[in-house]
Amino acid sequence: MINYKNDSIEKFVAEETWEVYLQNMNTHNLKLHDGSGAGSDFLGWVDLPKTALKEIPKAYNEAIELMQDKDVVVCVGIGGSYLGARAVLQALSKPFSKSSPEILFAGHHLDADYHADLLNYLEKKDFGIIVISKSGTTTEPAIAFRLLTDLLKKQGKSKQLKRHIIAITDAKKGALRNLADELSLMSFVVPDDVGGRFSVFTPVGLVPLAVAGVDVKALVEGAKDMSGEIGYEQLPGKNPALRYAAFRKLMWDKKKSVEILANTQPSLSYVAEWWKQLFGESEGKAGKGLFPASINLTTDLHSLGQYIQEGTPLMFETFLEISNPDQSLTIPHDEANRDKLNYIADKPVSYVNQQAAAGTYQAHKDGDVPVSRIVIDKNDAYHLGELLYFFEKACGMSAYALGVNPFNQPGVEAYKNNMFKLLGKK
Amino acid sequence: MINYKNDSIEKFVAEETWEVYLQNMNTHNLKLHDGSGAGSDFLGWVDLPKTALKEIPKAYNEAIELMQDKDVVVCVGIGGSYLGARAVLQALSKPFSKSSPEILFAGHHLDADYHADLLNYLEKKDFGIIVISKSGTTTEPAIAFRLLTDLLKKQGKSKQLKRHIIAITDAKKGALRNLADELSLMSFVVPDDVGGRFSVFTPVGLVPLAVAGVDVKALVEGAKDMSGEIGYEQLPGKNPALRYAAFRKLMWDKKKSVEILANTQPSLSYVAEWWKQLFGESEGKAGKGLFPASINLTTDLHSLGQYIQEGTPLMFETFLEISNPDQSLTIPHDEANRDKLNYIADKPVSYVNQQAAAGTYQAHKDGDVPVSRIVIDKNDAYHLGELLYFFEKACGMSAYALGVNPFNQPGVEAYKNNMFKLLGKK
Repeated sequence: MINYKNDSIEKFVAEETWEVYLQNMNTHNLKLHDGSGAGSDFLGWVDLPKTALKEIPKAYNEAIELMQDKDVVVCVGIGGSYLGARAVLQALSKPFSKSSPEILFAGHHLDADYHADLLNYLEKKDFGIIVISKSGTTTEPAIAFRLLTDLLKKQGKSKQLKRHIIAITDAKKGALRNLADELSLMSFVVPDDVGGRFSVFTPVGLVPLAVAGVDVKALVEGAKDMSGEIGYEQLPGKNPALRYAAFRKLMWDKKKSVEILANTQPSLSYVAEWWKQLFGESEGKAGKGLFPASINLTTDLHSLGQYIQEGTPLMFETFLEISNPDQSLTIPHDEANRDKLNYIADKPVSYVNQQAAAGTYQAHKDGDVPVSRIVIDKNDAYHLGELLYFFEKACGMSAYALGVNPFNQPGVEAYKNNMFKLLGKK
Repeated sequence: MINYKNDSIEKFVAEETWEVYLQNMNTHNLKLHDGSGAGSDFLGWVDLPKTALKEIPKAYNEAIELMQDKDVVVCVGIGGSYLGARAVLQALSKPFSKSSPEILFAGHHLDADYHADLLNYLEKKDFGIIVISKSGTTTEPAIAFRLLTDLLKKQGKSKQLKRHIIAITDAKKGALRNLADELSLMSFVVPDDVGGRFSVFTPVGLVPLAVAGVDVKALVEGAKDMSGEIGYEQLPGKNPALRYAAFRKLMWDKKKSVEILANTQPSLSYVAEWWKQLFGESEGKAGKGLFPASINLTTDLHSLGQYIQEGTPLMFETFLEISNPDQSLTIPHDEANRDKLNYIADKPVSYVNQQAAAGTYQAHKDGDVPVSRIVIDKNDAYHLGELLYFFEKACGMSAYALGVNPFNQPGVEAYKNNMFKLLGKK
């Protein structure tokens, strides 16, 4: 269960007014269930966790089996075809211990140096590709997929491509669907009624995560349990996602323009990147929307901390906390005590981190930054599933409350059209 | 030479008014040289590149020699004791090819899982530590340094610590200076007149970079040449750092509140983190300052692109570009052409990336985002030196123009004081 704790509301509105915020937000929550809001063709994600993955599907097990002996699996995708899997994987991975297979990413930018070094790294390795693209023609992943397929061919695997590639794409049409059918690739479907940034609980997120060894059943189970807690049957005041969305609306009405998601665990930094796409792309239209920014504690207290504490009062801050972190690493005792740390010797490092977060919360609150906290129990697949669904639901309501369609992204084509023109595409 | 290109000025002010902006900014530039502004005890960085490193000092070579046979060197530091070296190293490193020695970072947060996995990774390795802290008692690096020193002792190296540790700290006082003297560690001095976020051209940045194999002489050479181009003798209209600072002031006056640094190369992402500390900590005080945010192209066009294009018009955007990227990786031709990429077959990937950046610049400009461009010639040590000094100089002027002291950070103690209280420190 996610706990949304907010002791900043009373600074801004009386209880009765807050009650009105909650009631209003409830009407937006309802729209996500009855389809009466804008963009209702894209509400497939709402009930997805309830129906998906009663058990790990046979097809997922086949994907795991196909990739399990590879040295490396490269996931090729960008935006919503990339961030969900990366967020969960980063949260659950150890930074210095390689998994087997090692999971890498490509096609999420056009950095030549990155892709050249990746190809060099893969040259003598047995690698697989999970390519994720609804159309198959998005420039970044299409280029990476060409480069990687070319390398497979150079490795002499032209006739066994289907032992190395899994495609996640449209059910019927598009370049990647055609390729998958022609080469008899193992393939999975990107549903039509789920947009990219809401797709983490579809094969787009689940197949790469299953291959990476993540317990995707637990992930979806967490999302499912959360969907019950924050459904339309829930009382508004007892619905943490609704309260979070209502506070965002309150902050918008009070002329705040930036929301900072403050990660208390750096391993959640890609959850923040995923969150930025979710809220930025859903809300940032028609000249509206809170700008989504993030910091990692305690790293960025030594860079952006000064600004948050005493700079332009643009922002409110949402702390993302884990209540039960691993406590096994403790601070060694040191007889000499030159660094004067013996007052916390034998204490868990994670305990010190929690006190740093609590101290920061209070400091920013004292600095008149409106603060609130999203608390999950543990950093594991189940609780990450809860968290991601929590944000999806809050985002849907929040965008409706701003009066925009949460499910379109009319502005993202502009740079592509210019780029195509510059590249001479006909 | 850095090129600062701006075609947005005329949208906001007439030429005569812009001339006044330039002249005013020139008075702030002068203060950085004559010491007549606030915080003038911390202007050591201004002329540093002119005097530093006529050749690689013998002491640096000794540091390189001490660490060159290690499997891993861990740099321990946070904020300004960390970001400069990390920014340059990340820009110049290949993502998948390990350097020798491998360079890792610690003590830049209190993440227990990270540090536990790091210790596990180092357990059977021969590793060295470069510990960077003016006081030696900053909580994050002090904890990491204790953990790492403890591991060295467990490896049976208690009596040879000086063969494994380099200290960069105060000349005379503090916990780390005492330790360095007691154990006869190789040590370097953090100058008193250079604040952390301006310290990349002191041993704080240069020693770790030299050990990592970076051409620090070229880095400082770039800074030195840049210091000539943007000195107080330069005509205001010909001074790119002054023009950048003046445009920031114009944007502030026009009520913009967020500056987005748009990296066209993801490898510059830590340059952006360094830039955030530089500007955020220097300007974010007295209720003022532009909020520094960053995006990586083209990744974040698929997350924050929509917001920038059509969301709340809070921001202006500064593109960071490299005019001569490596062109050796080209897009393979594919007979089948299912992905329809053959129109750019045999073109360098970096060329496509440049067109994507150009297309984005035009798209955001068309979306009424004020845009400008900082262009460096190449991604190498010399040009990074130019770039970092360019930002330092622009930042000093820019903060003076806002009427704040660029060189203090009164707000960063607040969270620490709360944390110490919660941890029961006396």
